[in-house]
Amino acid sequence: MTAQAPAFSFEPTNVGRARLGRLTTAHGPIDTPQFMPVGTQATVKALTPGDLHAAGAQMILGNTYHLSLRPTAERIARLGGLHRFMGWDGPILTDSGGFQVFSLAHLRHVDDDGVTFRSHLDGSTHRLTPERTMEIQALLGSDVAMALDELVDPGMPRSDVAEAMARTHSWARRSLDARAAGQAVYGIVQGGVDAELRRESVATIAGMPFDGIAVGGLSVGESKAQMASTLDVVAEALGDDPRPRYLMGVGSPVDFFTAVERGIDLFDCVLPTRVARTGQVWTDAGRLNLRNAAFLDDAGPIDPACGCEACSEFSRAYIAHLFRARELLAYRLATVHNVTWTLGLMRRLRASLADGSFDVLHDRVASAFGRSSADGDHGNDSRTYDGV
Amino acid sequence: MTAQAPAFSFEPTNVGRARLGRLTTAHGPIDTPQFMPVGTQATVKALTPGDLHAAGAQMILGNTYHLSLRPTAERIARLGGLHRFMGWDGPILTDSGGFQVFSLAHLRHVDDDGVTFRSHLDGSTHRLTPERTMEIQALLGSDVAMALDELVDPGMPRSDVAEAMARTHSWARRSLDARAAGQAVYGIVQGGVDAELRRESVATIAGMPFDGIAVGGLSVGESKAQMASTLDVVAEALGDDPRPRYLMGVGSPVDFFTAVERGIDLFDCVLPTRVARTGQVWTDAGRLNLRNAAFLDDAGPIDPACGCEACSEFSRAYIAHLFRARELLAYRLATVHNVTWTLGLMRRLRASLADGSFDVLHDRVASAFGRSSADGDHGNDSRTYDGV
Repeated sequence: MTAQAPAFSFEPTNVGRARLGRLTTAHGPIDTPQFMPVGTQATVKALTPGDLHAAGAQMILGNTYHLSLRPTAERIARLGGLHRFMGWDGPILTDSGGFQVFSLAHLRHVDDDGVTFRSHLDGSTHRLTPERTMEIQALLGSDVAMALDELVDPGMPRSDVAEAMARTHSWARRSLDARAAGQAVYGIVQGGVDAELRRESVATIAGMPFDGIAVGGLSVGESKAQMASTLDVVAEALGDDPRPRYLMGVGSPVDFFTAVERGIDLFDCVLPTRVARTGQVWTDAGRLNLRNAAFLDDAGPIDPACGCEACSEFSRAYIAHLFRARELLAYRLATVHNVTWTLGLMRRLRASLADGSFDVLHDRVASAFGRSSADGDHGNDSRTYDGV
Repeated sequence: MTAQAPAFSFEPTNVGRARLGRLTTAHGPIDTPQFMPVGTQATVKALTPGDLHAAGAQMILGNTYHLSLRPTAERIARLGGLHRFMGWDGPILTDSGGFQVFSLAHLRHVDDDGVTFRSHLDGSTHRLTPERTMEIQALLGSDVAMALDELVDPGMPRSDVAEAMARTHSWARRSLDARAAGQAVYGIVQGGVDAELRRESVATIAGMPFDGIAVGGLSVGESKAQMASTLDVVAEALGDDPRPRYLMGVGSPVDFFTAVERGIDLFDCVLPTRVARTGQVWTDAGRLNLRNAAFLDDAGPIDPACGCEACSEFSRAYIAHLFRARELLAYRLATVHNVTWTLGLMRRLRASLADGSFDVLHDRVASAFGRSSADGDHGNDSRTYDGV
């Protein structure tokens, strides 16, 4: 780690492997465990940075794939970097672009050097290598950059998973070699849901001087039990590694508890913002769908316990009307609420780690949201509205 | 006028027939000349009431046609009225619904008693009469209600214009008879661009105990010269009538000056909000289209002289990017700017009436926006985005 890299300190807790920590960056501190709202195209959809601050956001995520295609990393650099461009003065983590190349781009071709693909926007051809993703992320000027990895489909044969993992390891080394001064870089552990491969991947990635360790390849279709057991394998293999641990693409209320118990410090997910635009809001009583007719006459707030702008100033009836009328304000208010509620849940989760009430909070959230909800999702928040 | 009706006081100025006034309502005062942003479906698209206050809005308009179909006036009444429903604590004017019935509904049939039409939403059949529009507006609880009128197409034969005018006069009397206690009611002068009919309409409408006089049937396709000469005819016929005068559906920067010189106190128009959603922003230098590629590298604000959220926190480059990416925040920021700029123009216009600089400001705006711009538009702001 260089002197400019974010510093991370934490205390263990009496809840499994859970830690309470603080990550320090040039753009401010992050209390962990923490959730990062996703701002795919240099905006958390419908929200301003002021809204994000009001919601309690400390760190947000930007998508390298989208930003490099439009408006391009070079343009953002000319305009002073991603923080200035979007008006967000807090910490930013950028992904490597790999996930979107493998899930969104067309006609991709992978070789050991990198991946060639066609843009989903206009079909133009682009190439992403470990060196290029680090260059893009340096141009964006994020506080934390991610090494390029190869997405692993959990249904692939073991030999294919192993091959992609080996490529991920080679790319991790090259990403580190290409790092920019003053920017933290996290490596990504892959290996699917195979314990042996995961252990090998942890040993390799944790053996490199990354500033943080990310867990990739989860929340991509595996079962909740597979996610939990894979996180156990990773935690066991990481041992007392002191670096921040980031579970990519996870952001459903119950999954936070599963992962925090297993030592995870950071999360990102499009789920709270994406489902908000379909009318699904998260509350202490669980999920509500504001498109249900019953809400059209409900004068109460989305969540009586929530202090967000949507809950303090508007009724369920009003927001339900806005959704039926397809009014822009619907997407904004539901997003304000879900981001505020999710960040509030993380705050309560941290408090519960400190005061010993973690299991009580976990049970309450699990009974409100269901223990076996299969609603993990991640990658990028690229649909404007009405799409799930 | 009843004791509960809004009180209006004004001082003449040395600019033609222009007046500087103040309209008092139960929800606060309105400085005139004043512009009312349009909140068709109980929301000024993409904005919260807090945004409207920050933009300097004093009074907004709600559309009776849309609200009566969805979520219905009865539902809004059960939820405490339109102010509480949408969270706007300032004054509200509601239109009669007539304009939308004649411009938006399907299969309408007009008779002397009222108009039967099919909803543009679901084809269901509805009937609007003078009594029903007053009932709806009482349920909504607006500060100012409008009498039902019949829309006049300026291209109709004179006998048809005269017939519609006669019906408008009959409906005006019935609207007054059906008025709710504590709600101001404005009558609407019609008569197309025919001076004789307009004079007759003014004599009839101004002869009734309305709380204000509206000028309808303009900004519907006539020339700028016809609008000005019709306003002259109306002003001449109104003489020293002390009631507020409201020009419906007008809201382009140059038209404000044309109308204020002719004694108009109130305006509403969807133009500033609708064009904002297409990327057109209004500035002291005239119109800019943020979809132009040149703005993608422009680090400056939309308007350096503007203090709105969009101008103080974001660049043209960023908002231009948001438009290209079809991000929800684009529509919000452009709308915040256009509403703020338009209300600021009205404030400057009022100041210019007080300090003698009206002609200077008029010339400046006319040279920035063009004297013959044909961009009047009104009625309702029902398209969500990207449509003009």
